Amino acid sequence: MSSNTSTPIAAQTIHQEFSIPFSYKVHFTHGLFDPGNKIFLNTLREDGHPGRRKLLFAVDSEVARLHPALGEQIAKYCQAYRDDLELCAEPVTITGGEVAKNRFELVEELLQQIDQHKIDRHSYVLAIGGGAILDLVGFVAAIAHRGIRHVRIPTTVLSQNDSGVGVKNGINYFNKKNYLGTFVPPFAVLNDFDFLNTLHERDWRAGISEAVKVALIREAGFFHWIADKARDLNQRDMPAMEELIYRCAKHHMAHIATNGDPFELGSSRPLDFGHWAAHKLEQITDYKVRHGEAVAIGIALDVAYSVHTGLLERPDMENVHQCLRDLGFSLAHPKLLSESGNGFNPLLWAGLEEFREHLGGQLTIMLLDRIGHGVEVHEMDRDLLDLAVQELN
Amino acid sequence: MSSNTSTPIAAQTIHQEFSIPFSYKVHFTHGLFDPGNKIFLNTLREDGHPGRRKLLFAVDSEVARLHPALGEQIAKYCQAYRDDLELCAEPVTITGGEVAKNRFELVEELLQQIDQHKIDRHSYVLAIGGGAILDLVGFVAAIAHRGIRHVRIPTTVLSQNDSGVGVKNGINYFNKKNYLGTFVPPFAVLNDFDFLNTLHERDWRAGISEAVKVALIREAGFFHWIADKARDLNQRDMPAMEELIYRCAKHHMAHIATNGDPFELGSSRPLDFGHWAAHKLEQITDYKVRHGEAVAIGIALDVAYSVHTGLLERPDMENVHQCLRDLGFSLAHPKLLSESGNGFNPLLWAGLEEFREHLGGQLTIMLLDRIGHGVEVHEMDRDLLDLAVQELN
Repeated sequence: MSSNTSTPIAAQTIHQEFSIPFSYKVHFTHGLFDPGNKIFLNTLREDGHPGRRKLLFAVDSEVARLHPALGEQIAKYCQAYRDDLELCAEPVTITGGEVAKNRFELVEELLQQIDQHKIDRHSYVLAIGGGAILDLVGFVAAIAHRGIRHVRIPTTVLSQNDSGVGVKNGINYFNKKNYLGTFVPPFAVLNDFDFLNTLHERDWRAGISEAVKVALIREAGFFHWIADKARDLNQRDMPAMEELIYRCAKHHMAHIATNGDPFELGSSRPLDFGHWAAHKLEQITDYKVRHGEAVAIGIALDVAYSVHTGLLERPDMENVHQCLRDLGFSLAHPKLLSESGNGFNPLLWAGLEEFREHLGGQLTIMLLDRIGHGVEVHEMDRDLLDLAVQELN
Repeated sequence: MSSNTSTPIAAQTIHQEFSIPFSYKVHFTHGLFDPGNKIFLNTLREDGHPGRRKLLFAVDSEVARLHPALGEQIAKYCQAYRDDLELCAEPVTITGGEVAKNRFELVEELLQQIDQHKIDRHSYVLAIGGGAILDLVGFVAAIAHRGIRHVRIPTTVLSQNDSGVGVKNGINYFNKKNYLGTFVPPFAVLNDFDFLNTLHERDWRAGISEAVKVALIREAGFFHWIADKARDLNQRDMPAMEELIYRCAKHHMAHIATNGDPFELGSSRPLDFGHWAAHKLEQITDYKVRHGEAVAIGIALDVAYSVHTGLLERPDMENVHQCLRDLGFSLAHPKLLSESGNGFNPLLWAGLEEFREHLGGQLTIMLLDRIGHGVEVHEMDRDLLDLAVQELN
């Protein structure tokens, strides 16, 4: 803080400056609520709080359905460590999937639970589920009492390797994705691989596209590893998936910590490679296309566009498209095309401006000039997009 | 970021660490929207944005009423600097006062304006008004698009010297003060002293209590200066008020920057000296008692309690009470007492737990052991409060 004492008061300026250090851990484990596994206990104990911590869990309805004993396991775990953990209610069950983020009444319901159970800034709101539930619960935890401690327990590939390990939360509003949200790092992230065993095939696969994305812009070696393992991953090879998630999470977190803009104050957003068309495709299909599936299509599209704009060699595009197909993704979708079928859907084109508006400032789209290396452009050519979309169908 | 490469993946931990630097300026001026005054223009130009910035203003209805030409002045100013500033709509008028923070529909209305005018993260939402309007608009700006640039133009003593220069925003919910909110520093704060000329007597006075507060916990010399100027301040001496606001703002900002906890992750909250009873008094009087008036009573109460608990000498209490009375504050209020009239109001006593819950963790109340120096306690004695409240009536 500085100011000048010789200036009249009505011409003074006080310059405020400070830094906030953020720190959190992402743990990888199996059997998180097995009383023999102390990761959960020790993670919360790191808060240095004397006595019992109050915990309020919110659980994705699909996770609750597939793991009917989960509530009881959590209760037993908290009972086993009752000197430290106080479960203040049965877990709140929330209907999962992206549509949860469209329902503002879920925000109100969660706030009521937080108020009713007197959850304060030193208590914990914990979310178990896919990315949508984590985004929703994280948003509520971020604004109640100006921020309650939030622990994420992601249960999908997508949330374990990407959205769950980052610093964003949000809900949809005005039918626009993530229109409301904040940047608030979680208290901790606990990735239990056991949840992956019960994933639907679509959800097992969907999150892999974020690993392809981060590999394409950051590390060619990781992309070639994924391409090599693509059929194994598609066949639900668990060791391959564990490695994929770990490497992808690490890339995402390294990007956030070292890119100089963790809270996205600028216009550049490399981790949104392939996302501009994806966000709009999700929305115009009423979220029937899952985020990860839409990202696979968005990557395929922007890679094809990179070729047509002269940045990328065609064999690189073919490698990327082949990898995505080997992973089981469909790269064609009727909504990519206009109603006449011969050109890029004008609704998706409009998504470009929504994407710019959401990020703010100048339009900034990441393309590829080689595998493992992105390059940013500030305009997109509609004629070239028409050509790019033909490559996918 | 660190992790251990010799450990199996399902026992790995990735440790994320980064710091976010925050910086903003608080300018003091007269005639902010006089085209000859370039502070507004230059403040926004510091964003480095090429071309025009979109601006959406929200104005306190009371300010709009007292300054009927304000909208036109802003329009002319933006027109004079049209290469840099784009006023995208007439200012949105919002009924001011604490009750604005109870009305969630105002959040929705502001969001609609932000959406309709395509305000993005690099555009500006600017609030002109008292603390309640700044808190409300700041909250909306903080959650739309995960954070739009927010400029505060406080028009009251309270907001110019305290709430407007800090890092908090919020609205009331469940009839609890600031139940929803975030910690987000403003892009800039522009304190135009001219707005003070049209303040009602109550609002002129109310904000002075925050200066008394900060002086009592941080600087005896500042307290003695206020006590010395108390009658001048009560008589609307403008040079004295300008100095009071500047010194108080500087103390607040220095506290935020140097106390090691700008986003209030701990339980200690020295700047909330005198506030625990004040918050509840506001609420149980339906906000008829203004925040600053309630804080004056809260300070008087906690100073009296400090004497009864043996921390503070009685003459110091008498100095504080005399100073507050010279400023024109009333230190008695019927709601301080129980219905029978002989003891502390049990509703206010319940406010102690709400205060703890809002801050989180251990109850932490600042008391005084001498003028200019606070000391924290972790419990309050109801019998001593009964004695303290008698001192005020």
